[in-house]
Amino acid sequence: MNYDRTPFETDKPGEECGVFGAYDFDGHDISSSIYYGLFALQHRGQESCGIAVSDTEGPKGKVDYYKDMGLVNEVFDEERLNRLHGNIGVGHVRYSTAGASNRENAQPLIIHYIKGTLAVAHNGNLTNAVDLREKLKYSGAIFQTTIDSETIAYYIARERVQTKNVQEAVSRTMDKIEGAYALAVMSPRKLIGARDPYGFKPLCIGKRDNTYFLSSETCALDAVGAEFVRDVEPGEIVTITPNGILSDKSHCLPAEKQGRCIFEYIYFARPDSRIDGINVYSARLLAGRFLAKDSSVDADIVVGVPESGNAAAQGYAMESGIPYGTAFVKNNYVGRTFIKPKQSSRESSVRVKLNVLREVVKDKRVILIDDSIVRGTTSDQIVNMLKDAGAKEVHMRISSPPFLWPCYFGIDVPERHQLIAYNHTVDEICKEIGADTLGYLRLERLPEMVNGLGICTGCFTGNYPIPAPKDDIRGEYEA
Amino acid sequence: MNYDRTPFETDKPGEECGVFGAYDFDGHDISSSIYYGLFALQHRGQESCGIAVSDTEGPKGKVDYYKDMGLVNEVFDEERLNRLHGNIGVGHVRYSTAGASNRENAQPLIIHYIKGTLAVAHNGNLTNAVDLREKLKYSGAIFQTTIDSETIAYYIARERVQTKNVQEAVSRTMDKIEGAYALAVMSPRKLIGARDPYGFKPLCIGKRDNTYFLSSETCALDAVGAEFVRDVEPGEIVTITPNGILSDKSHCLPAEKQGRCIFEYIYFARPDSRIDGINVYSARLLAGRFLAKDSSVDADIVVGVPESGNAAAQGYAMESGIPYGTAFVKNNYVGRTFIKPKQSSRESSVRVKLNVLREVVKDKRVILIDDSIVRGTTSDQIVNMLKDAGAKEVHMRISSPPFLWPCYFGIDVPERHQLIAYNHTVDEICKEIGADTLGYLRLERLPEMVNGLGICTGCFTGNYPIPAPKDDIRGEYEA
Amino acid sequence: MNYDRTPFETDKPGEECGVFGAYDFDGHDISSSIYYGLFALQHRGQESCGIAVSDTEGPKGKVDYYKDMGLVNEVFDEERLNRLHGNIGVGHVRYSTAGASNRENAQPLIIHYIKGTLAVAHNGNLTNAVDLREKLKYSGAIFQTTIDSETIAYYIARERVQTKNVQEAVSRTMDKIEGAYALAVMSPRKLIGARDPYGFKPLCIGKRDNTYFLSSETCALDAVGAEFVRDVEPGEIVTITPNGILSDKSHCLPAEKQGRCIFEYIYFARPDSRIDGINVYSARLLAGRFLAKDSSVDADIVVGVPESGNAAAQGYAMESGIPYGTAFVKNNYVGRTFIKPKQSSRESSVRVKLNVLREVVKDKRVILIDDSIVRGTTSDQIVNMLKDAGAKEVHMRISSPPFLWPCYFGIDVPERHQLIAYNHTVDEICKEIGADTLGYLRLERLPEMVNGLGICTGCFTGNYPIPAPKDDIRGEYEA
Amino acid sequence: MNYDRTPFETDKPGEECGVFGAYDFDGHDISSSIYYGLFALQHRGQESCGIAVSDTEGPKGKVDYYKDMGLVNEVFDEERLNRLHGNIGVGHVRYSTAGASNRENAQPLIIHYIKGTLAVAHNGNLTNAVDLREKLKYSGAIFQTTIDSETIAYYIARERVQTKNVQEAVSRTMDKIEGAYALAVMSPRKLIGARDPYGFKPLCIGKRDNTYFLSSETCALDAVGAEFVRDVEPGEIVTITPNGILSDKSHCLPAEKQGRCIFEYIYFARPDSRIDGINVYSARLLAGRFLAKDSSVDADIVVGVPESGNAAAQGYAMESGIPYGTAFVKNNYVGRTFIKPKQSSRESSVRVKLNVLREVVKDKRVILIDDSIVRGTTSDQIVNMLKDAGAKEVHMRISSPPFLWPCYFGIDVPERHQLIAYNHTVDEICKEIGADTLGYLRLERLPEMVNGLGICTGCFTGNYPIPAPKDDIRGEYEA
Repeated sequence: MNYDRTPFETDKPGEECGVFGAYDFDGHDISSSIYYGLFALQHRGQESCGIAVSDTEGPKGKVDYYKDMGLVNEVFDEERLNRLHGNIGVGHVRYSTAGASNRENAQPLIIHYIKGTLAVAHNGNLTNAVDLREKLKYSGAIFQTTIDSETIAYYIARERVQTKNVQEAVSRTMDKIEGAYALAVMSPRKLIGARDPYGFKPLCIGKRDNTYFLSSETCALDAVGAEFVRDVEPGEIVTITPNGILSDKSHCLPAEKQGRCIFEYIYFARPDSRIDGINVYSARLLAGRFLAKDSSVDADIVVGVPESGNAAAQGYAMESGIPYGTAFVKNNYVGRTFIKPKQSSRESSVRVKLNVLREVVKDKRVILIDDSIVRGTTSDQIVNMLKDAGAKEVHMRISSPPFLWPCYFGIDVPERHQLIAYNHTVDEICKEIGADTLGYLRLERLPEMVNGLGICTGCFTGNYPIPAPKDDIRGEYEA
Repeated sequence: MNYDRTPFETDKPGEECGVFGAYDFDGHDISSSIYYGLFALQHRGQESCGIAVSDTEGPKGKVDYYKDMGLVNEVFDEERLNRLHGNIGVGHVRYSTAGASNRENAQPLIIHYIKGTLAVAHNGNLTNAVDLREKLKYSGAIFQTTIDSETIAYYIARERVQTKNVQEAVSRTMDKIEGAYALAVMSPRKLIGARDPYGFKPLCIGKRDNTYFLSSETCALDAVGAEFVRDVEPGEIVTITPNGILSDKSHCLPAEKQGRCIFEYIYFARPDSRIDGINVYSARLLAGRFLAKDSSVDADIVVGVPESGNAAAQGYAMESGIPYGTAFVKNNYVGRTFIKPKQSSRESSVRVKLNVLREVVKDKRVILIDDSIVRGTTSDQIVNMLKDAGAKEVHMRISSPPFLWPCYFGIDVPERHQLIAYNHTVDEICKEIGADTLGYLRLERLPEMVNGLGICTGCFTGNYPIPAPKDDIRGEYEA
Repeated sequence: MNYDRTPFETDKPGEECGVFGAYDFDGHDISSSIYYGLFALQHRGQESCGIAVSDTEGPKGKVDYYKDMGLVNEVFDEERLNRLHGNIGVGHVRYSTAGASNRENAQPLIIHYIKGTLAVAHNGNLTNAVDLREKLKYSGAIFQTTIDSETIAYYIARERVQTKNVQEAVSRTMDKIEGAYALAVMSPRKLIGARDPYGFKPLCIGKRDNTYFLSSETCALDAVGAEFVRDVEPGEIVTITPNGILSDKSHCLPAEKQGRCIFEYIYFARPDSRIDGINVYSARLLAGRFLAKDSSVDADIVVGVPESGNAAAQGYAMESGIPYGTAFVKNNYVGRTFIKPKQSSRESSVRVKLNVLREVVKDKRVILIDDSIVRGTTSDQIVNMLKDAGAKEVHMRISSPPFLWPCYFGIDVPERHQLIAYNHTVDEICKEIGADTLGYLRLERLPEMVNGLGICTGCFTGNYPIPAPKDDIRGEYEA
Repeated sequence: MNYDRTPFETDKPGEECGVFGAYDFDGHDISSSIYYGLFALQHRGQESCGIAVSDTEGPKGKVDYYKDMGLVNEVFDEERLNRLHGNIGVGHVRYSTAGASNRENAQPLIIHYIKGTLAVAHNGNLTNAVDLREKLKYSGAIFQTTIDSETIAYYIARERVQTKNVQEAVSRTMDKIEGAYALAVMSPRKLIGARDPYGFKPLCIGKRDNTYFLSSETCALDAVGAEFVRDVEPGEIVTITPNGILSDKSHCLPAEKQGRCIFEYIYFARPDSRIDGINVYSARLLAGRFLAKDSSVDADIVVGVPESGNAAAQGYAMESGIPYGTAFVKNNYVGRTFIKPKQSSRESSVRVKLNVLREVVKDKRVILIDDSIVRGTTSDQIVNMLKDAGAKEVHMRISSPPFLWPCYFGIDVPERHQLIAYNHTVDEICKEIGADTLGYLRLERLPEMVNGLGICTGCFTGNYPIPAPKDDIRGEYEA
C-alpha cells in the first residue's frame, strides 16, 4: 500500500493540515526529528510546510523557523535544518486548496507577544472565526494572514496578560473558539497540545527516550522511532514540560457528544495510523466486510481503486471469499508539478497515471471498491478502463455512504450542487459512471466500524455536532 | 500496484534506459506524445531524458531537441515542448549510475553527418565498444561522450557514404557492433527501430490513426492511446515510412540462440507491459506459483516487498491458498531528492520509507516475497520490521534464482564480491537476513515462466549468449 | 556615472529602503509602473522588494501582492506583474543587513483591519519603537515581524476606529511615533504619503497624465516618465484622491528644526535626484569644490573612487583646474551573488572588482576623492593599487567630515569602535591607508552644500535633532 | 569607468568569445584562477561559459569540466569549482547571439581522441569552415555542435596520428584552417596557444610564480595577479611546458600583412588591457584627440555615451580644452534578465537604463562622444534626452569611421541594409538622430591610433586581409 496524494485522486474531499511537535529534555536539536515527522504526515497537506524551533535554555524570545510552499523534502534540506537550533519545536504541513494558496498562510505561525514568543500549528477550521476576527479588529487587531492560527494566537496573547501561565491562556482561548482544532503550540519553555471538545481532528503523544512528541497521526511516531503513549483526549489540553505532562480536561465532553471526523478513518489518515484506539487499516477492512455483507454480488475478482480503495477491497475479499486482485498499475512519477501538454483525445489524463492489467480483468466479473465518490468525475473513466480491458461486469462498491453535505470543520468539499449524490439517486449515479451495479456503505455501519466511538457524520447526514455557521465562511478564512 | 523506482529499492540491479519514437504521417507535432511515452517509461531511467524531433517536410538538417538531467516532468514543461516542432522524433530516459552521471551523456544523441542529421536513442550495452572506439579513433574520430550511441552513430555515418539509404547503413553497422541494443533512430525522413540479434532488450511497434510508434515497452503505447502492432523481432530492423513499415531480418538468429534479458520479466519492465508475447504481470504471478510449488511452507499470510514483490506474492497466494495481504505502507513522497539529515539511531532510513501494518502481521506466520536479493542490504531490515511488529515466523521467498554473475549487456550490477549469493550459501543468507526459511526460484523454472522463449540467464549461471568481453568495460563506457 | 551598490562598496554606511506609490485615476493597472519605479530605487535596497496593489473600484478588502528576497528584476517577471491587478498601489525595496535578513520582513506590509485593508511601505527607523511595541503588546497585540511598519500599522488600525478617515488615523499615529520615516500607505481608496517632522528621509510627488506617484527620489519619477510635482514637506501628510491632493501640515516644524539626513546628499541618493530643491549631483560637485578650496594640494590629476567619489572629484577638478581623469575600471559583473573561491594571495578581492588604468596614473601626483571612510577597510587597498601602478603621490580627499557617531534613524553603521575616525586622528588615518596627505570636508561646509536646509549631522557631531534612544534598538527591531 | 555589456548597449557590434588558460607547474588546482580570469573577460561573452581542467600527473584521459548557459558567477560556485581538479586547464566565455544560443555550443569543447583528450577554446571565426566540415563529413565525421572548435579539434585529432606531438598537429591544422582564431588548447600534459597569422584576435601570456597563463586580454592577468610576459605573435604557436615555452613561428606573416581587428581597440577590449603593445585606453583617448583636431566644434562641455564613449570624450576634452563632464547616470541593475513589462509610452526602454543629469547639460552646447553607430537605433533617443534636458546644441562625434561592411571574422554585425551608414550620408544620419552636427573619426587616423600596427579595417572599407568567403557562413556555423 503506497501513500501519496497525487493529482489522480482529484475526486476526493481535501484534508487541511497535519501538526507535529517535539521537546527533547536533554537539550539536543530537534529539527531533524520534526522533519521526519512531517514527512510521514505529508499526505495530510502538500501545499506548504514549516518548522519552528526554540532553545529552552537560550534567550527567551528567540525562535528559528522556516516555511515555504512545497513538499517537506523540497522545502528543507540538510543546510536549512542545520540552521534551526533548538530542543523544542512544532511543525506543520498544509493542504493545497486552489484559491488561497500563498506563502503568507504557511504555518506554524510565529508571533511575538507580551510574554515572549509563540509558535502555533493548527489543523481544523473554526466555525466562529469571522465573529472572533471582527471582535479582535474592533479592539485594534491587525491581521496579516487568513489562517485561524492567527485568531487563536491573538486570543492566547490577550488571555496571557491575565493568566499565570500559557496553558491557562490556551484554556481560556478554548472557551471562545468553536469548531475543529488540533493544536501544537510552542512557548519558550513548553510544548502544548490541544484538541477541540468534539475531537474532530486527531492528536496523539509519543515518547522516545527523553523526547516527547505530539502528532496528528501515530504513523509519524513510527517514523521517528517513538513509542505511542496515548491519544490526547477530545477537549484535553496537554502541557509537556520536563517535570511531566500536565493535563487539563476541563473542556472535555461526555463520550456521546464527541464527533470525530469519520473521513479520517475512511480516507484521510494513513492506514498504518491508530486514532483513538481504532486502527485505520482495520476500520477500512471492516468497511469492506460490511459491503460484502450488505451489498453482495457474485463476481470473479475484487479490486480496489488505488490506493485508497485497496484496504476495503481486501476486506470485501476476505468476507466474500472472492479472490482479491490487482487491476491497476499507477505511475507514481505523477507529482504535483506534472504538466499535461496539449494532447490528442486519446491521451486521457487518467491513462497517463493509471493503466489496467488486462489479463487480470479480461472476461471477468469485477467488483471495484473505492472509498468515496464526491463529484463523480473520475469513476466513469475508471469503470470504462476496466470495460475496455475486457471486464464482463463492473460492480462498484463505495466504502462510505453517499456524500451529500458540506463540511464546516476543515475538509475541502466542492459546492453542494457539484456533489453527484446531492442531485442523483444511486441508480442514476450507477448509470452515469457506467457500472453494472453500485452499492454504498450503509450509514448504520459507521459507528460499528469505529467500535462505537463518537463520530461526526455531517457530510452524509447534515447533522453536525455543533451548529453550522450562519454564513459559510470557508471562502474567506480557511485553516 | 504502483510504479516508481525510489531510493528504497536500492538492493536491485539497475536498468539502463528506455527509448521511444514516433512518426505522424499527417504532419502534426509529435513532441507531446513522446513526452507521454517517456513518462510511462520513466521507471527505466530517472537520471536524464531528452526528446529530438524533426519536420519531415521541413529543411532537411533541422532538428529541435532538448535534453537535461532530471525526470521527464522536471525537464519538460509546456513551453519547452512547444518549442520542439516536428512530426517525427525520438526520446530517451536514462538510468542514473553513481559515477558517470552527466549532462553530456543524456540521449538522444544528435549528429550532423554527410547525409544530414541523425538522432540516436539506445538502450543496452555494446560488448565490443572499446575496440570499435579505438578503431574509429585511429581513423581520426573524436568522441565527446562516453555513450555507445556515439559509436553507433559513427558507424552509421561512415557506412552511409557507401549505401543507398540509412536503413542499409544501420544494417551494416549491425555487422560490426556486438552486445545488447534496442535502437530508435530518426533520420530526416524515416524512423528506424533495431534490436540486437539476441533480443536482450525489448522493442515494440504501436499505431494510433496515422501515427506509428516505437517503444521499449507496451505500457507506453497504452499511455499514448496507441494499439500494439507487434514486437520488433530480435535482430530485425524496421523502417517506418509513410509508404509502410519495411523489415530487414537479415540479422535474425534462430529462436534457440536468442537471449532476452530475463530480468525484464522479473523486475525491470512494468507489470502492465507485454514483451515478445509474454505478459510481465503473468510471468511474475507464475514465478510466485512456482515458488509455492517448489518451496512451500505453512503460513498464515503471504505478503510482497513493495512494489516489485507484490505480483509474485499474489501468485504464491493463489497457488497455495494462503491469503494474500498487505503488510507495508510505503511513503511515496520519498523522491530522488529525499535527504536524510543527521538523525538519531532510531530513525532508520527504511522506517522513513516503509511502515508495517502491525495488525496484519501480528502473531502471524508470514511468507514474504521479493523479486531478488543482490547485496542483501535491506532484506534484513525488512525481516526485522516484521518481527518487531509481532510476526511469529518470516519465510522469505525470492522470485528469481540466486544472483551470482556480472552482466555485460547494460544492467548495473555491483562488484561480484558484493553479491551476497556469491560468497554465501542459501542457509547463510537466510541466517544473515534473520528469516526463518529462505527459498529461491529454481533455475529450471525460468524458461517455463516465459513459455520457452530464448532467454539470457547469465547473471544466475555465468553462461552468456555471447562471450563476455575480455576486459570488463562497464567502468569507462556505459550506455 | 553608474548606479549600483556592489559588494565592492563595503566600507559605506547602509541605507534602509525606498518607497514608491502610484494611483491611476483612470483605473488602469499600475503594477508595471511601480515595478519601473522600484527598479530606479534599487540602489536604496537590494535585499528584498515587494508590490501591493488594489482596485479602487473593486471589492474593498482585496489586495494583490507579492514580495520576496532579491532584486526587483529577480523577484518580478511579466507573469508575476500580470497577476497584480489594481490601479492603486505601493512598493518597497529593502536594504540587506547581515543579520535580520528574512522574507517575513519584506515590505510592504499588508494588513486586514477594522476598516478593510492597508499596505504600508516605510523608509526609516522609529526611535521609540521598543516602547510602542511594549505598549501594544500589553494591550494584546501580537507581532509577526521585526519591522517598524507593523508598529505603524497597528497604530493606524487602532486610531482608525475613532477617526473619520484614514489620513486622520495616520495623523494621530504621527503623534505617537518618533524617529525617521517616509511612508507610502495604500488604503482601499487612497494613497497616502507622510514624512516625519524632521524630514530625515526624502519623499516626493510626481504626476503623469491622470496618475499620481509618491517616490523616495525623483529619479524614479523620471523612470516612469512622470513630472516632478513637489516634495512632501517634513511633517506633512498628503492624501492623494481623485478629488485632489489633500495636505495636512499639522506636524510640520519650523525650518530650523528640520534635520534631513545629510548622507542622502553625500552618498545614498542617486546623483540625478533632487531632494527638497537641492540637486544631489550639484551638492556633490560643490563638496568637491569646497575640498579644493579648503584642502588644496598640488597634483597632476584628480580621480574619484568609483562610483560615489566621481562627482566630488569633478567638482575638485573644476575648482582647482587640475585635470579630471579616470583611474579605475570596475567590473560590473560583480553582483550580489559573486563568490570568492579559495584563492591565492595574489587574487585580492579588490583586484577582482577594480583595475587601475596604469598609464593614467603612472608618475603622476594623484588626488583621490571618496565620499566617506567608515571602517577604512578598503581605502588602503585602493591607495596601494595607485602606488603599485606608479603614482608618485596619492592625496586622499573625503567629501564628508570624519564619521564618528552612530545613527538612530535608519542608517546601518558599524559598532562605534569599528569607526576608524573614532579612535584615530586624521594623521593616523592618513598613515594607516598609506596616503601622502588626507583631507576631510569641513563640517561648516555641510549647510552651505545644501543651501541652508535644515540637516542632521549626528553621525559627524553626535548632535541629533531628537534625543538618541536610551537603548540602541537597532539590533532587535530594524526597518 | 565601468565594464559590463548591458542590454542598453544594443547598437554595437557583438564580440564572440574570450579564452583563458593556465598551467601550474607546482601541481596545484587551477580552476579558481581560471574562474577569476574568465570573470575579468566576461565583457567578451555573456551567453555561456565553461572550464576544463586536467591533472598533468593524473590518469591521462581524465578531464574535469563544467559548462552551461549564463554568466561566470552564475555558472560557477565554490562547490562546482571544487569539483574541478587539475593543475592545467582552459576556460571560455561565449557571446550571446540571438539565434544559435544553446548549451551544446558552450566551450571549451572536450574530446577524446587517439592520443587521449583535448580541450579546445576558440575565439574567432573560420572562413573556410563549411568546406572543412564537408570534407570531414565525407570521410565519416559526425558533428554534434555548430562551433568551429569542433572542426579544429577534428583536424588536430587527424593530424596527430601522423605527427610526433600535439603542437605539430596544431601547426598542420593551421595549414588548413583559414580565418580568425585565438586558441587555447589543453592536452593532457601541455597548454598550447595559437593565433591566426593575421592576428585578428588578441592572445597574450602571463606568469605568476610557477604558473603560466594564456589570456585574450591582459586585464585578466591583472585579475589573477599575474605579470604580463608577452603577446603571442600573429601566426605563432606557443607550447607551455614545465621545460619552457616553445614557440613555432612558421605561420607568421610579415607585419604589413597582419590584420588585427581594430574594433578590439575601439570597443571590445577592456580599457585597462594592452594589446600588441598598445594600451586600449590610450588608443581611445587618442581617437578622441583626433576627433577634436579633425572635427572641432565650439561647445561648453564634452560628455561620453556610457561607458564606451567616455575615454574618447576625455581625449576630446584634453585636446580641445573644453571641460569634460558626466551627463548620464546609468542604472547598473539592468542585467541580462531584465524584463520590460508592458508599459505606457512614457516608460521608454532607454529611460529605464539611463537618466540625464539635467543641471550638467541645461543651456549648454554639448559634445557627445560615442564609439560607433551601427543601426542608429539608440543614438536619436540619447540625443533627444539631452535636448529634453535643456541642452542648447548636441554635437555628436564618433570615435570610429562609418560602419559599412560585414565582418567575416567573428564579429556579430547586422545585415548590411540595417547599417545606417550603408544607406545614409553623414548629413542624413545627423538629421535622423537629431544632432546639430555629426562627425566621424577619419579612416586615416586608425593606423596612427595603434602606432602603425597592421590592422583589419574591413568593416569600414570592405577590404579584408583575406578574401571574404563566397557564401556568408555566419548563419549556420558561428564561433
